[in-house]
Amino acid sequence: MSIRSGRRPGQSGTREAILAAARARFAEVGFDKASIRSIAAAAEVDSALVHHYFGSKQELFAAAVDLPIDPAFILEAIQNAPLAELGTVLPRTMLTVWDSEAGPGVVAAFRSIMAGGDTALVRTFIVQVVLASVRDRIDNPKGSADLRISLVASQLGGLLVTRKVLGIEPIASLPAEEVARLVAPNVQRYLTGDLD
Amino acid sequence: MSIRSGRRPGQSGTREAILAAARARFAEVGFDKASIRSIAAAAEVDSALVHHYFGSKQELFAAAVDLPIDPAFILEAIQNAPLAELGTVLPRTMLTVWDSEAGPGVVAAFRSIMAGGDTALVRTFIVQVVLASVRDRIDNPKGSADLRISLVASQLGGLLVTRKVLGIEPIASLPAEEVARLVAPNVQRYLTGDLD
Repeated sequence: MSIRSGRRPGQSGTREAILAAARARFAEVGFDKASIRSIAAAAEVDSALVHHYFGSKQELFAAAVDLPIDPAFILEAIQNAPLAELGTVLPRTMLTVWDSEAGPGVVAAFRSIMAGGDTALVRTFIVQVVLASVRDRIDNPKGSADLRISLVASQLGGLLVTRKVLGIEPIASLPAEEVARLVAPNVQRYLTGDLD
Repeated sequence: MSIRSGRRPGQSGTREAILAAARARFAEVGFDKASIRSIAAAAEVDSALVHHYFGSKQELFAAAVDLPIDPAFILEAIQNAPLAELGTVLPRTMLTVWDSEAGPGVVAAFRSIMAGGDTALVRTFIVQVVLASVRDRIDNPKGSADLRISLVASQLGGLLVTRKVLGIEPIASLPAEEVARLVAPNVQRYLTGDLD
C-alpha cells in the first residue's frame, strides 16, 4: 500500500501506510535490522509520527502482525525473572496468554501461519523479540544462545499445538500452573543446562 | 461415500468405500474402539476383504488418513528400544521420517490439519497408535501414562513445528542425530522421570 502523491492522506491512511511499510520491512530484513527510520521512510512519513501512532518498535511489530496481545506483558515477565526460575516463568507466561481473552486470537494466528502464512514473521517474533530478551543471560558457554532459544521454542510451540490445537489430554485441560510446573525442568535444561 | 444399491462396485469402488467407512469410524470413536468388523459393516463388505486390501488396522488407519508412511516403521523402532533409550529412539525415529522422502507429505498433512483439518484423527494417531505402543511400559506410577504421552507429544510436535514449518535455526539445519541427542534427556524425563 502506498500513499497517492498529490493528496494528503487522513490519519487512517497514514496509520495503514506505516503498518504496510512495517510488514514489508520486518518480513524482508527481520525485526532487529528493520529500523523505525527505514519504515518511516518507506511510508513517507516522519519517524516521530511512527512513535506517535505505535510507541516502541515492539508495539509496532505487534500491530503489524495483528498480534492480539501487548508483547510488553511477556517481555516484562521474562526480564524480571531470575535465571534459575525462567524455566517456570516462560511457560507460565505463555500459558497465561493462551488461556486469556487474547488466546483465541493467538491460536488463530498460529494456525493460519501453520497453514501457509508468513513464517518469517513468527520466526522473527519468537527469536528476535520474545527470546532475544533472555539471549545474553543464557549465552553460556558463549555461542550457545541460539541453540538454547530454538530448543525452548520447540517445547513451547509444541505446548501450544498439543494444548490449544490438537487438544491432547490431559495437557489440554490441566490448569496452566500445573502444565508450567510439569515442563519447567525441561525448559530450564534448555536454558541453562548442560547440552553436551 | 456409500455404495449404490443394486450395483456391484468394482475393486476401486470397494476400496474407496472401505476407506470412507474407516475415516468416518476412526473420527467418530477413535482408533481403539473402531473395529475392522464395524468398518466392514459400514462399507457393506466382509471383514476379510478389509484385511485383504489393507492388512492390519494400523495400515488401514494410515491409508484412511493418507499417511505417507507405514506406521510399522515407527512402531517397530519404538517397541524394540529398551525403556532407558526411548528418549533418544523416539525423536530419532520421528526426525528420520520427517527428513525422508515421506517428510514433505507428513509436513503438508500436519500443516493442513493445523489449518483447520480434522484434529481428532491426528490425536488418535499420536495417542492411540504411535504412543500407545509404549503406554504399558511407561505407566509408572500407575495412571501416569496419558500425562507422560501428552508431554512427549508436546516436545515432538514442537520439534516438527520448529524444524520443518517455522525453520528456526539451528534446529532446522542440524543433523537429525544431533537434534535427537539434544532433546533426548527431556523426552526421557517425560517417559520415565519424576514428574512431581
